[in-house]
Amino acid sequence: MSAGGWQPAEPAGRVGQAFDPPPPIRLAMLGCGTVGREVLRLLSEHADELAARIGAPLKLVGVAVRRPHRHPEIPAELLTTDAAGLVNRPDVDVVIEVVGGIDPVRGLLLDALKAGRGVVTANKALLAEDGASLAEAAEAAGADLYYEAAVAGAIPLLRPLRESLAGDKIVRIAGIVNGTTNYILSAMAGASGGAGTGYREALEQATLLGYAESDPSADVDGFDAQAKAAILASLAFHTRVVASDVYCEGITEVTSADIAAAEGLGCVVKLLAICERVGSAEVGESVSARVYPAMIPAGHPLASVDGAYNAVFVEAESAGQLMFYGQGAGGAPTASAVLGDLVAICRNRVAGGRGPRDHVHANLPVQPMGATPTRYHISLDVDDRAGVLATIAGVFARHGVSIATVRQDMSGGAGPADRPGARLVIVTHTAPDAALAATVAALAELDEVLGVDRVLRVENLGRPVSALGVA
Amino acid sequence: MSAGGWQPAEPAGRVGQAFDPPPPIRLAMLGCGTVGREVLRLLSEHADELAARIGAPLKLVGVAVRRPHRHPEIPAELLTTDAAGLVNRPDVDVVIEVVGGIDPVRGLLLDALKAGRGVVTANKALLAEDGASLAEAAEAAGADLYYEAAVAGAIPLLRPLRESLAGDKIVRIAGIVNGTTNYILSAMAGASGGAGTGYREALEQATLLGYAESDPSADVDGFDAQAKAAILASLAFHTRVVASDVYCEGITEVTSADIAAAEGLGCVVKLLAICERVGSAEVGESVSARVYPAMIPAGHPLASVDGAYNAVFVEAESAGQLMFYGQGAGGAPTASAVLGDLVAICRNRVAGGRGPRDHVHANLPVQPMGATPTRYHISLDVDDRAGVLATIAGVFARHGVSIATVRQDMSGGAGPADRPGARLVIVTHTAPDAALAATVAALAELDEVLGVDRVLRVENLGRPVSALGVA
Repeated sequence: MSAGGWQPAEPAGRVGQAFDPPPPIRLAMLGCGTVGREVLRLLSEHADELAARIGAPLKLVGVAVRRPHRHPEIPAELLTTDAAGLVNRPDVDVVIEVVGGIDPVRGLLLDALKAGRGVVTANKALLAEDGASLAEAAEAAGADLYYEAAVAGAIPLLRPLRESLAGDKIVRIAGIVNGTTNYILSAMAGASGGAGTGYREALEQATLLGYAESDPSADVDGFDAQAKAAILASLAFHTRVVASDVYCEGITEVTSADIAAAEGLGCVVKLLAICERVGSAEVGESVSARVYPAMIPAGHPLASVDGAYNAVFVEAESAGQLMFYGQGAGGAPTASAVLGDLVAICRNRVAGGRGPRDHVHANLPVQPMGATPTRYHISLDVDDRAGVLATIAGVFARHGVSIATVRQDMSGGAGPADRPGARLVIVTHTAPDAALAATVAALAELDEVLGVDRVLRVENLGRPVSALGVA
Repeated sequence: MSAGGWQPAEPAGRVGQAFDPPPPIRLAMLGCGTVGREVLRLLSEHADELAARIGAPLKLVGVAVRRPHRHPEIPAELLTTDAAGLVNRPDVDVVIEVVGGIDPVRGLLLDALKAGRGVVTANKALLAEDGASLAEAAEAAGADLYYEAAVAGAIPLLRPLRESLAGDKIVRIAGIVNGTTNYILSAMAGASGGAGTGYREALEQATLLGYAESDPSADVDGFDAQAKAAILASLAFHTRVVASDVYCEGITEVTSADIAAAEGLGCVVKLLAICERVGSAEVGESVSARVYPAMIPAGHPLASVDGAYNAVFVEAESAGQLMFYGQGAGGAPTASAVLGDLVAICRNRVAGGRGPRDHVHANLPVQPMGATPTRYHISLDVDDRAGVLATIAGVFARHGVSIATVRQDMSGGAGPADRPGARLVIVTHTAPDAALAATVAALAELDEVLGVDRVLRVENLGRPVSALGVA
């Protein structure tokens, strides 16, 4: 099975034991940016330890980069600009891909897998777009495809989902999987102690600290979280979910007023990637995958995850509630995840086997966002006159949306000077998202409604929210 | 390698695909209590799903119990009282052990491993006492030994430590690994909202709720956490650490005054299992493993883990800070972990290989508790007279212990009516535990000291504790 053609060492080598050392496992790396440099450092600094854990030494045979002169730290004979040539070298056992982007990486990794080489990749965009092709190529060739680093960086998440919970049934995943947006929302909430800042100011801070790119769109518009949600949903529910299946709203519209409103309800605002198994065996199961900012109860374990940290909350039928917390990005943390995968693939090769593959046997349909049950928190500026509440309640009723709580917010909201205004804050019970959206649209049309100030979704995540009056 | 003698299915079966179904993997279970019953339920309810994930169906061939008449739900032909006979049946592929206790289980599992059968066990006491013998037997026979359920129940922890962080270097593990004591400490702190209770009352609550056994010693004296610390330290540091290597103090001496004192410092009290890599490559590395109640900063992710939940905080060189959170006990959560291991072993058998083994190549010495650097929080009742602070500071200095903060606690403490007393609260910097203990003993001998009210260790866990005046 190994392209290198060497035999499994039996027993696997421990440092200092006397027997013929097994031949090295030969590695090729595609790309050498922040993560790649850390991978090279770990490979070099921990060479003995890695050999002991794997049972064979590792040998780097090439690094494909665009501009070799920018990598004086790498021996010149290892550097190449010919990524395809490197991937197709017959003596390469495992390919580590830290380039990112969909093409030309897709073709390179497909070539590697088809040739039976193991592949470690951190490429969330590619996996969320076309992970199925990679998985099929791996399956057909009996090759290993590992990608722990693609979601939540250093946090061991995909392996627990795929292996530790293999005998369980995952019901829901709700994750803070983008550190940039979590940093921004934490800063807006004043989580580090001071007063909260506005969105623009928080984004500037994040950029200064290097958490946000100069073009922050992939983060703040939710696309990064969207790709990760697709990967998580695919893995958790044994179903193919691609990025475009995932409903996505970013945080660019979140205001300080939203954060304050959440606080008033005993909640905080987090950008969540939610993957749920919905329906039942009787009526048919499907998968919901979505990304949006939502209010969650302040007592929920996810609520206290601040700054650039990531955390993923998992609910499984037997295991109950689990949470995984750690750094979601950065060179060293991501390299740790890459190395963990590399060790696993290499151990599999030494043992003459391969790791668990991705199953898509469930093949559940993806539920459209409109049919997904959610809850809304709605702030309305209304005419402060008799009967207005009855009119508004009637709109909810006509759309089949049940109201959990209504309160009048004395602090904010007002109409024009000539019309006495009041701010109503309404939290609904769960209803299909389309019904909620239609309700909001109908409210906006009402003469009594001066403006729909803001809509935010509310996610209990299995915890009672007493301030909301509903479990 | 499989005792069943069947061939690996290639490719592994997906439900509905047309090829000869592979023969079943044959399971024997030892014990059938709370966890065992849940394992049987999951094996039955999820049979198709498990077969799809494994690539072969599972078949239970026997369950060894002490009193068969107590298990009317299990077909009579599967029940036996002859555990040794069951384990040695030549047609058994994998043994699931949920009996607990050291003997006779040790001999049964050694027999199973020597015969090449896979073993899944939740037996922390046995693993902490003699995991090395089991690991050696597994290694010699090329058999799989998995025990995720032995530490922190449903939380995927051992697999991430062993596999996900295989390319990293674990520096420290600090875990809340006993739900009973965490429930008691949470109740004493009033974590669920009300006022805190005393230790006795909290223990009674825990017993009523079924969290504590009628003899709670294994939990409250720290022995359960001690066994888990030994397993974690062995795994994390590739070194043999047994339960008796782990320094252990329970929570029976923790008072409401301790909890209040912690709150005053911006801390909470948790029973921690701490495993650390100490020293350096230059001066020699060793391992510290210890269990005791300690003050930790209220802002630390572990601090908000309340009730019967478990959480384990891991620091690794590259990955940084990670935390794993979930249910540490209970039938269904523990069964989820057992099933995850079972699926892994069965997948390995289908693939004709085996999983990663436990390496003890590092063989680090275990640091005695006296040499382990810790910090103390000390409450002293002293004579309120001139010079007392200088005398006390002199005792610390003579023992080489540096004081971080001293403050006079106006609320509590007093001497007898005829001697005006003051309560001093002292927090030290880090010093060897023996030096700290000797300091406390010397303080108690001082004429000026009316009493050493209480000593609690302080663990920053990598976070600054501003109230303590030290990072």
